[in-house]
Amino acid sequence: MKLARCSFNGGKPFWAVVDLEHDEVNPILGDFQEWAPRVAGGAGISALSLAAKPVTMADIVLLPPVDPTNRVVVAGANYLAHLQDDFGLDAPVQPVAFLKAYGALIGANDPIRYPPLTKELDHEVELVAVIGSSQIDLQNPLACVLGYTVGNDVSARDLQRSGPKGIGMDLFSAKSQDRTTGVGPWIVTKDEFPQGSPKLRLTLAVNGEVRQDGTTADMTWDVGELIAFVHARSSFACGDILFTGSPAGVGMGTGRFLSPGDVVEASVEGIGTLRNVVSEKNV
Amino acid sequence: MKLARCSFNGGKPFWAVVDLEHDEVNPILGDFQEWAPRVAGGAGISALSLAAKPVTMADIVLLPPVDPTNRVVVAGANYLAHLQDDFGLDAPVQPVAFLKAYGALIGANDPIRYPPLTKELDHEVELVAVIGSSQIDLQNPLACVLGYTVGNDVSARDLQRSGPKGIGMDLFSAKSQDRTTGVGPWIVTKDEFPQGSPKLRLTLAVNGEVRQDGTTADMTWDVGELIAFVHARSSFACGDILFTGSPAGVGMGTGRFLSPGDVVEASVEGIGTLRNVVSEKNV
Repeated sequence: MKLARCSFNGGKPFWAVVDLEHDEVNPILGDFQEWAPRVAGGAGISALSLAAKPVTMADIVLLPPVDPTNRVVVAGANYLAHLQDDFGLDAPVQPVAFLKAYGALIGANDPIRYPPLTKELDHEVELVAVIGSSQIDLQNPLACVLGYTVGNDVSARDLQRSGPKGIGMDLFSAKSQDRTTGVGPWIVTKDEFPQGSPKLRLTLAVNGEVRQDGTTADMTWDVGELIAFVHARSSFACGDILFTGSPAGVGMGTGRFLSPGDVVEASVEGIGTLRNVVSEKNV
Repeated sequence: MKLARCSFNGGKPFWAVVDLEHDEVNPILGDFQEWAPRVAGGAGISALSLAAKPVTMADIVLLPPVDPTNRVVVAGANYLAHLQDDFGLDAPVQPVAFLKAYGALIGANDPIRYPPLTKELDHEVELVAVIGSSQIDLQNPLACVLGYTVGNDVSARDLQRSGPKGIGMDLFSAKSQDRTTGVGPWIVTKDEFPQGSPKLRLTLAVNGEVRQDGTTADMTWDVGELIAFVHARSSFACGDILFTGSPAGVGMGTGRFLSPGDVVEASVEGIGTLRNVVSEKNV
């Protein structure tokens, strides 16, 4: 089942079940906090009350599938080749996690803002886990997962390197810039994947040329381990989302950064594609 | 004017004007987003509609003066002696900012949770600026300030040092632990201070012994510069709060960390005192 957060004619956001076959979405009645735990628990579409009338896909905009009251957590340093090839770093002993500002998010087809402070705008395709319950079992962390979506953790690399000596990377300046991070197009519920942490191909293309081509099977820490790592430090709530790291091939390693007008397509197998065009600078 | 976020008998949070003389609070009608910009703009108490009946202070609990839809931004590396004496670091060329999880916050009299993963729980008294408008003028950033409150950015130092090599301090694990960071007791509106960035004494005592005793006049970057630094990277919204760094004297430098039962009092001149007791471990 595909769950999207949508807006109809710029109106109030709503959640809906996506029906690609009929090119429409079926709005879900009630709050995410009510129905998501039931879907995460395995109840499927029977857990949902749907509106009487579907809405044509052409009439809606796909929003980031996370409510503004929730957190955006990013767990990085999770693909060894990305660290070694792109950053020249060694294998870490544990992941690193940080919070991303909600205002950094854009939907699946929105423009990527080119922030005025950077000259090195870069891409990072990622599998994103959506937490569907506030009851997190550290022994079985995948039980709380509602499903998965696609993220593009767009990063300003020059700002990332500008952190004070001894303190480290400036991940806030690099990764919380307004309207840069694509998330979506929807959440695919976990019942559509084999049990366990997903093993899925993820790719990122710029103007049709593939720059990142990896698999989530190469994660150093799988989705369950990342959820447990984060939750032990700062509790997850129902609706929070977790970026799970990016494979090798980003501009930081190749020197090929994003430019205004670039068409950036981030895909995860079995989920979908974000298609975001980089805007002009200083807008 | 003192503005507090309160709860009456564990009920829904509300904002109120604090009247210490009569030991009561006067609930404010309407949303923070409506009235805060008017107060930040200088309208004073005339900008507020108050409830007909005040509430006795004894009947309310003081909550962190920030709504859960807002962000908690921390700007660090802002007092040179703290960096040099406590961390052995050089003067940075710019501040560092990061986001703190809302769930880390506690009110002025709540217990400080002792997180199970740390053995080095530490204190950091800070001046906290409250943003009272979503219109931020980078040429006059103090215009958006509603007022100031007190923060104690409690930090797990062993976790702070545990970040992967080459990436840097793990500020998420150190500073977003659930229910550790005191904020309050209320916001004192900026009209109660001289124009410009406040120059106020800030102290922190553990069991009555003063451990930190500094002045916000020693900030490397003043409040306006910090607001501009953060806002240029990730936009502020009305109601967001900004921690502005801590002076020297923390346990990281002295080796004297917090223990269960410790009474921690963080004060800023002209604002008030947080009095939080460290809880037992593993609760």
